Amino acid sequence: MSQIFVDACFGKETTHTPVWMMRQAGRYLPEYMRVRAEAGDFLSLCHDPEKACEVTLQPIDILGVDAAILFSDILVVPMEMGMELKFVKGEGPLFPKPIKTMEDLDALCVEEAAQKLEYVYETIRQIRGKLAADKALIGFCGAPWTLATYMIEGEGTKTYAIVKKLIYSQPEFMHKLLRKVTEVLKLYMSKQIESGADAVMIFDSWAAALEEDAYFEFSWNYMKEIASYLKAKYPHIPIIMFPKGISGYLDRIDGDFDVFGVDWSTPLELAKEKLGDKYVLQGNMEPTRLYSQEAIKVGVEKIVKIMDNKRHIFNLGHGILPDVPVENAKYFIKQVQAQTKR
Amino acid sequence: MSQIFVDACFGKETTHTPVWMMRQAGRYLPEYMRVRAEAGDFLSLCHDPEKACEVTLQPIDILGVDAAILFSDILVVPMEMGMELKFVKGEGPLFPKPIKTMEDLDALCVEEAAQKLEYVYETIRQIRGKLAADKALIGFCGAPWTLATYMIEGEGTKTYAIVKKLIYSQPEFMHKLLRKVTEVLKLYMSKQIESGADAVMIFDSWAAALEEDAYFEFSWNYMKEIASYLKAKYPHIPIIMFPKGISGYLDRIDGDFDVFGVDWSTPLELAKEKLGDKYVLQGNMEPTRLYSQEAIKVGVEKIVKIMDNKRHIFNLGHGILPDVPVENAKYFIKQVQAQTKR
Repeated sequence: MSQIFVDACFGKETTHTPVWMMRQAGRYLPEYMRVRAEAGDFLSLCHDPEKACEVTLQPIDILGVDAAILFSDILVVPMEMGMELKFVKGEGPLFPKPIKTMEDLDALCVEEAAQKLEYVYETIRQIRGKLAADKALIGFCGAPWTLATYMIEGEGTKTYAIVKKLIYSQPEFMHKLLRKVTEVLKLYMSKQIESGADAVMIFDSWAAALEEDAYFEFSWNYMKEIASYLKAKYPHIPIIMFPKGISGYLDRIDGDFDVFGVDWSTPLELAKEKLGDKYVLQGNMEPTRLYSQEAIKVGVEKIVKIMDNKRHIFNLGHGILPDVPVENAKYFIKQVQAQTKR
Repeated sequence: MSQIFVDACFGKETTHTPVWMMRQAGRYLPEYMRVRAEAGDFLSLCHDPEKACEVTLQPIDILGVDAAILFSDILVVPMEMGMELKFVKGEGPLFPKPIKTMEDLDALCVEEAAQKLEYVYETIRQIRGKLAADKALIGFCGAPWTLATYMIEGEGTKTYAIVKKLIYSQPEFMHKLLRKVTEVLKLYMSKQIESGADAVMIFDSWAAALEEDAYFEFSWNYMKEIASYLKAKYPHIPIIMFPKGISGYLDRIDGDFDVFGVDWSTPLELAKEKLGDKYVLQGNMEPTRLYSQEAIKVGVEKIVKIMDNKRHIFNLGHGILPDVPVENAKYFIKQVQAQTKR
């Protein structure tokens, strides 16, 4: 059975424009909060294939979206490369011992990390076993740059001062780290696909931390390498790239992938002009519009007008916020389905 | 005596490209830290014209920059409009009672606020009295959007969820607040100019929080209104606009001002292509390049190559970071002066 999400990724005409939301399996859903409470904490939920499968499927049943996205976290990769990871309540992720020396870097494992992520592959197998055949399952990973930044900084940062000091004073150290992470991600994404992912997405959440030349040198080139590797091995699997907040760099975006994720700060018209012929676009509704049904309606109309139901996958331009009312999330999905029906 | 900074703002040819740094009177300077310690805390320093004058002049003497920028903070404006303001150590500014109701909004004063800011005007008079005649003094304020966001959120925010909920569900409330702030800023900037500021700059630090249409409706239009008002009254005073991180919106930038500040995330070539004929450009060296002298040299070379010494004011693309070595800041200024000498 064909999946309209996968068809749309390849630019084929579909019955309506497919829609899903980043972080759709998340805190705005009481059903998610219940399973997460049962699991104990966030990382335990990532480690529990049965429960991770359950929350992955919730938005399919509750909202009627066209694709499920694996419930996991981008930081399980550095964790399984050998770094202790904690999620501090109310403060986000923390690596208590960030990478500082060449010894720290050499100690990180590659093949073993990809093997240790078996609980992710098992989650994918369980989801694919339960998900309706016409709904797609999206696997994902963080971009090497975003992961390496966490590994160097140890936690979220406003200035990226440690990692940027490194790229301007010891670029070869950073490249060595990025190389290792890239190799793990090639294996990791291959295994996700072989376990049943119908499409994959690479999230470069911290793309906007770098000036243009540095972005291409330290981030995009590595993402592109992963995409080419996967495309050669699995040509039937769509690849979605999502570098967040680089609207000034679109002229230099290229590579062997299918869908470009447009964040809300990048005007969709601009993305269409620069990339719309070459890639299908995904996005880019402002997530805070979901606080108001009137703002949702207007936002969907604007996007429909720009994309004209062609070469587009509907999504938010960033993850859904935890305090959005569930009825507004449902309203968003219904608006898209109604406004884009052929 | 003419000031090369002011000449360059109006696109005139100068002996070298003028250079200064955002936050040049700041924590990376031991001389600044000494005066700040004497003052007690950050707000006391803003309130003390003699000491604020002293730190404003330090980078002129220590680094040899071509312009001084008034030492103050954008948040003294909402404070004098009637909001209690605290600077919590290590956490940044805090308004313990943010604007929530129409009563809160109605209680904010306008003319009185502009009068209460007398300590700023006195600081400007003292600086202008001591500053060499060939060096310019830049006055400044925050953009209405950036100030209003602080007034609504109460503190720094990652998601801007409160203020964005407001703009999508009660836009008229937000416009009423922005109107009041705009009126104060017109008076405030007029008084800064009449006290001796040779140029003024409007900082929209949180420009990147808004999607394109919302940006023009809730921010740029108000900034533009202030610029037009000042330009009509003081045509000989250059106006610099600095909306941070809106590289995707440059096609729609217009208005009655002289210099457009280019942040480091906006490619300078792109800004030149879109705005360089109409406005002089200021910026946009990546501030973290100041961690490495080699990176400084390469960064200055790149910018010189793009701007070719024309219609440009050298600056960082964001404030100098507190842990930059003073010798590197000096090296940056010397590199600019050497590489741009006619």
